[in-house]
Amino acid sequence: MHILVTGAAGMIGRKLTENFAKFGGPGGRAIEALTLIDVAEPPAPAGFAGETVARAADIAAPGVAEAMIAGRPDLVVHLAAIVSGEAEADFDKGYRINLDATRALFEAIRAANAADGYRPRVVFASSIAVFGAPFPEKIGDEFFLTPLTSYGTQKAIAELLLSDYSRRGFLDGIGLRLPTICVRPGKPNKAASGFFSGIIREPLVGEAAVLPVGEDVRHWHASPRSAVGFFRHAAEIDLTALGARRNLTMPGCSATVGDQIAALERVAGKRATALIRREPDPAIERIVAGWPRDFDARRAESLGFRAEASFDEIVRAHVEDELGGKV
Amino acid sequence: MHILVTGAAGMIGRKLTENFAKFGGPGGRAIEALTLIDVAEPPAPAGFAGETVARAADIAAPGVAEAMIAGRPDLVVHLAAIVSGEAEADFDKGYRINLDATRALFEAIRAANAADGYRPRVVFASSIAVFGAPFPEKIGDEFFLTPLTSYGTQKAIAELLLSDYSRRGFLDGIGLRLPTICVRPGKPNKAASGFFSGIIREPLVGEAAVLPVGEDVRHWHASPRSAVGFFRHAAEIDLTALGARRNLTMPGCSATVGDQIAALERVAGKRATALIRREPDPAIERIVAGWPRDFDARRAESLGFRAEASFDEIVRAHVEDELGGKV
Repeated sequence: MHILVTGAAGMIGRKLTENFAKFGGPGGRAIEALTLIDVAEPPAPAGFAGETVARAADIAAPGVAEAMIAGRPDLVVHLAAIVSGEAEADFDKGYRINLDATRALFEAIRAANAADGYRPRVVFASSIAVFGAPFPEKIGDEFFLTPLTSYGTQKAIAELLLSDYSRRGFLDGIGLRLPTICVRPGKPNKAASGFFSGIIREPLVGEAAVLPVGEDVRHWHASPRSAVGFFRHAAEIDLTALGARRNLTMPGCSATVGDQIAALERVAGKRATALIRREPDPAIERIVAGWPRDFDARRAESLGFRAEASFDEIVRAHVEDELGGKV
Repeated sequence: MHILVTGAAGMIGRKLTENFAKFGGPGGRAIEALTLIDVAEPPAPAGFAGETVARAADIAAPGVAEAMIAGRPDLVVHLAAIVSGEAEADFDKGYRINLDATRALFEAIRAANAADGYRPRVVFASSIAVFGAPFPEKIGDEFFLTPLTSYGTQKAIAELLLSDYSRRGFLDGIGLRLPTICVRPGKPNKAASGFFSGIIREPLVGEAAVLPVGEDVRHWHASPRSAVGFFRHAAEIDLTALGARRNLTMPGCSATVGDQIAALERVAGKRATALIRREPDPAIERIVAGWPRDFDARRAESLGFRAEASFDEIVRAHVEDELGGKV
């Protein structure tokens, strides 16, 4: 089979691509070709026997969507996005990439569908940012979308397009509302959500981390390993049961910051947790107060999507996948 | 004040424009100018003392949105749309008018906002077509949007844009999800929903009407008079209380076809109801089975939006407004 991944140079994109290279395609199918696209040229996965085309491209530029699907990939994983903070700071850029480029991709597929019956599986990375406060303590599968950012708005619009293009038979789409991915490997970043990963990642390697919110802050998490699993699973299951409701809140682990710290202590001891410095930041506290705390993701669970059941598992997944199993 | 109405030649557009000409603007403000746009030149309302600019225009064509707001209307009522059946039959046309032209209008306002601080009240005509079965018997204000038509998808996307542009301060928007408007005056049309009006309108003037569904079919209605009232009210209330949740299901009257016929009989007697011919049409029955039956529109009600409390009132409104009060 042939797989296209947009946003392939990002953290999830690289992990997913490496996973495809190592374990083959969804359902164990052999992968003949990988087309990897990002704003900077994505790395080709090591040890992949098939053909890799890795290209830097502006996915919103005219003709790029058509070029991306020219080889008629059987599976399209659409990860490329301008992240929340940047989409809020640059209104035009956010709409251009998160809405216009997504629609251009779907339109290119529709044109190919009309030309030769092409109808790929499209797995779209949505986000729990489609939800905005106030909401119930646990958000159910039928709760309405009231994004409080332009990023969340763009993801919600793309979800609606994905459903309509699927209903019309132009593509076979599924949208995954990802939890906050934790523990993100790599350097600390300036995202308001960065501390959720930082307070685990830094202490595990003996470095200090700043906690800008109280320990009672509750949020919805899944590991990068689970995220890769979501995309693999979404690529291989039968979507008939979804009907026209093509977008699903992914399972996750609801944990308070206090739960996170307790899990870190169980895995790495008090020497690790002692490296967390409490420096309350009212601006971050205010932003985080509008974020979802917990979900009842039973629709995705009933379709076989799985995430960590506890934050301990999330910490251990990071230790295994990023630190060679050593604390 | 200056008011822009798109879709001004349509049934609601004409009634609203005539109402503005007769009673002045929202909150009793004097109207100096009306800009009326539609695909065919809208009629200028009789007896209006101010300036009327009535123009035929393709609202999705480049430059048209900018031209429409060049006079900086204080109030923009955006009614123009490709209706449900046509948007389903012509995918490109539906997206072009219902999504692209709406976004072009909002973008033109954003550019004007950046240039000179322009920030009009925008009242957008959405639809209960943003909802698709399965749903609860009564749909609440926090139920999710799962449109089952491209029209409903386009309206749902426009709702999200309206909320985001309002949240960012580019405009002060409110979206009204209109019930099925009943009794529509004029000739029968081919809309699947046409019979809801036809079985009242035709018998009231001594003509036969066809009923293609069973009497137990329940649906959500409001009169054209109520629709005009919704738009007037939306134009004048303070929207601060809406926060970022700018789209509201309008109140209506939930009635079965049997309730409709009983109301007709109370208003016009058995001679009228005897003109209804039952000719079940499985295609129409199937379409109508996916439509909402009832809503709990308490959010709009708490903001002062009002519709008819019974279908008798809806029939009487038609008799008063279209038949000079005579049955």
